[in-house]
Amino acid sequence: MTFLNRQGIEGLVVIGGNGSQTGANALSLKGFPVVGVASTIDNDLYGSETTLGVDTALNIALEAIDRLKVTASSHQRAILVEVMGRGCGYLALMTGIAGGAETIILPEVETNPEEVAKELREAYQRGKSHALVVVAEGAYYNARRLEQYFQEHRELGFELRITILGYVQRGGTPSACDRLLGTRFGSAATDCLARGEHGVLIGLLQGRIAVTPLSEVVSKKKPLDLTLWRMAHVLAR
Amino acid sequence: MTFLNRQGIEGLVVIGGNGSQTGANALSLKGFPVVGVASTIDNDLYGSETTLGVDTALNIALEAIDRLKVTASSHQRAILVEVMGRGCGYLALMTGIAGGAETIILPEVETNPEEVAKELREAYQRGKSHALVVVAEGAYYNARRLEQYFQEHRELGFELRITILGYVQRGGTPSACDRLLGTRFGSAATDCLARGEHGVLIGLLQGRIAVTPLSEVVSKKKPLDLTLWRMAHVLAR
Amino acid sequence: MTFLNRQGIEGLVVIGGNGSQTGANALSLKGFPVVGVASTIDNDLYGSETTLGVDTALNIALEAIDRLKVTASSHQRAILVEVMGRGCGYLALMTGIAGGAETIILPEVETNPEEVAKELREAYQRGKSHALVVVAEGAYYNARRLEQYFQEHRELGFELRITILGYVQRGGTPSACDRLLGTRFGSAATDCLARGEHGVLIGLLQGRIAVTPLSEVVSKKKPLDLTLWRMAHVLAR
Amino acid sequence: MTFLNRQGIEGLVVIGGNGSQTGANALSLKGFPVVGVASTIDNDLYGSETTLGVDTALNIALEAIDRLKVTASSHQRAILVEVMGRGCGYLALMTGIAGGAETIILPEVETNPEEVAKELREAYQRGKSHALVVVAEGAYYNARRLEQYFQEHRELGFELRITILGYVQRGGTPSACDRLLGTRFGSAATDCLARGEHGVLIGLLQGRIAVTPLSEVVSKKKPLDLTLWRMAHVLAR
Repeated sequence: MTFLNRQGIEGLVVIGGNGSQTGANALSLKGFPVVGVASTIDNDLYGSETTLGVDTALNIALEAIDRLKVTASSHQRAILVEVMGRGCGYLALMTGIAGGAETIILPEVETNPEEVAKELREAYQRGKSHALVVVAEGAYYNARRLEQYFQEHRELGFELRITILGYVQRGGTPSACDRLLGTRFGSAATDCLARGEHGVLIGLLQGRIAVTPLSEVVSKKKPLDLTLWRMAHVLAR
Repeated sequence: MTFLNRQGIEGLVVIGGNGSQTGANALSLKGFPVVGVASTIDNDLYGSETTLGVDTALNIALEAIDRLKVTASSHQRAILVEVMGRGCGYLALMTGIAGGAETIILPEVETNPEEVAKELREAYQRGKSHALVVVAEGAYYNARRLEQYFQEHRELGFELRITILGYVQRGGTPSACDRLLGTRFGSAATDCLARGEHGVLIGLLQGRIAVTPLSEVVSKKKPLDLTLWRMAHVLAR
Repeated sequence: MTFLNRQGIEGLVVIGGNGSQTGANALSLKGFPVVGVASTIDNDLYGSETTLGVDTALNIALEAIDRLKVTASSHQRAILVEVMGRGCGYLALMTGIAGGAETIILPEVETNPEEVAKELREAYQRGKSHALVVVAEGAYYNARRLEQYFQEHRELGFELRITILGYVQRGGTPSACDRLLGTRFGSAATDCLARGEHGVLIGLLQGRIAVTPLSEVVSKKKPLDLTLWRMAHVLAR
Repeated sequence: MTFLNRQGIEGLVVIGGNGSQTGANALSLKGFPVVGVASTIDNDLYGSETTLGVDTALNIALEAIDRLKVTASSHQRAILVEVMGRGCGYLALMTGIAGGAETIILPEVETNPEEVAKELREAYQRGKSHALVVVAEGAYYNARRLEQYFQEHRELGFELRITILGYVQRGGTPSACDRLLGTRFGSAATDCLARGEHGVLIGLLQGRIAVTPLSEVVSKKKPLDLTLWRMAHVLAR
């Protein structure tokens, strides 16, 4: 802080997720003017319904799924895609819904591999031309574990072909949504600093810019909306 | 309507913009169960802050601008992109903001070509490496008219190189946003029909599904938010 | 040249098309060690069957056509795309063949708008779901002229919806082909300089790196292979 | 064959790789008119320097690498991408060269994980902002094995973040190259059948359509050009 002062820096905008905002809050508590901007592809930050980077990461995952479906429909095997999100299943859930997955595996919901195999079998019996599983990297049954389980249990009847997107989802040209959100967030953050409002996070709530105290942001958890998970199950039928 | 009844059709979901929803409203007034879904890349439909297709069209326009900037920065000429939107400048405005245009020309705001040339000159003087103009197809000075004006007024000092996106913006793989919005709209529309709520449009207001009477949708106009246009001018500096 | 010597520059690699290579040849005639690398999206350079940038430009044009076909097939109007290439029809021809155009208009072949309308009509009669015209910017009937002709001759029965790609084709992330070709060209050019072979162009002939004297490159013309144009006509049936 | 005859089928074009062409050859030996078309993303088919699908697969891999480099340059860890190709390292080699990988691991060349770590360390010492490894799925040290090795040998000093593309590389919109090659291959194959030339494969040699007896295709191996592998090492410096 004294370092920042000596450099002639009078305020700071911290763009990031839980880790960065925890640091931002600590700096703010010491009296330095800090404004946070909600940015993480994991979308697990309290104070913003969606965060910078999520839309770009979703588009990258969907592009992969579009490509996978070509093969999925020509071979009778199951395709498994592991997406990012650390402990949060948001990216996997949205990817699964928008990509038309048969099964979605989340850290927030317990998964039984036997149940996964049953859902894949039923999908084929209903005449589906592909069997697609989307897995969050933070789920206990991530790509590697599920692959191994199916290899050790041949009686499940599916060979899993896995794709692990990894950091591919963190790069790429930002999407239109993310560019516009970034512009609005950046504009709101500098406005905040200019009018002397500090120690807050700029986020999006109900489609509007929202300002939430950093102390609240770092102490509360944003739960995953599981009604969407139930909708995904209805859609997969 | 009697035709629909004879076919055993008990309800209708009409996906479209002003034209389609005017038809939907007429059918509804005759007593047939109709629910509209807000869908047009022009984003000029009352009852929905954003409509299906807008996000995909925006991403396509931005991809074009990213490519144009490569040349823009290597030649000292101005690049002009005409985007769709009919009488509405929404697509052009958002494209211009997210793409970092020096000037945006909208149907809703009167444009002076001399002023455009002045803004391009000033951009170069401020050290900008490209001079990019985004034009809405519905503006009086659309791509063809502006190109001609600059050809007839050589003293303006800019050769305009034009790109007209045209129907390219209406195609393409739908973006993540549009797929998720389509899923939510579709789900809400069938829920409406199921519970006997007709003659309404499913749209998005404040990030939430909103239901608006079709009679209101077809009789009211959604104005363009010109505070964004002013923000675009600040950003271009 | 004395300028180059004074800067300690001992050799030059000139990456470009006819204009740049004419300069390279002039410099070479004065005795300075120059090696050219065949690079232009127009693909009109003698000494190389394909040039750097062509593959990227083709992919961009095809992406546009894929998007246009979505609309083309839902409306009964003709879609027209103007692609780059200056006086050379190569890009338009390849775009038209790979994109499945009904008609291709080139600078090298005289075009009759009445004939274009006839081909579009016949395409619909054969049950084609879209009517797509690809036009080279250097053709007499480019997008603007053909649009005007069809507007003034309503009896032709087609409303043309135009897309002009313009400089969009010159930007973009380079394709795999262009990156690998660039690597091979660059490697061959430095090898040439190192072994004292100057005044030549590095190009690709029959899938192999080929070295051609710059004097020949700048004095000869590479004609367009019109057997491909005839193949395009057969494919459009 | 009698089945084909009964269906009124007089000739067959078999599009595929080694497996499909072995079947094509067997059918041909029984006297049925068959022409093969060289198509596999593995590019391991004798009789064609490049095969249908390779260019599309390469572009998909490079797109992933472009996205990975964004993160690679912001964290000090190594990024590993596993690409397809079964027993053939062609896709990995070309991806590595065009994508600027520090290290490429192929089935055709023995790999020492200690050596990989050394190359990554040296890349950082030379000031490279990313450390990228491309691995062929058919190499002994594929993504999973190399990840495990680095986990068990912490002293190597690198945390590997892996991406496995898997079947993502087999889907996608075909690239311009592949569409044009497909058009040429298809045209040549039907010409062959029409003039009564059977039991051959249509491929590409030295940039020209080439016809090779299927018996030769299925009995010979196409070796990987390892001069390219050595060039990759020079480029990585």
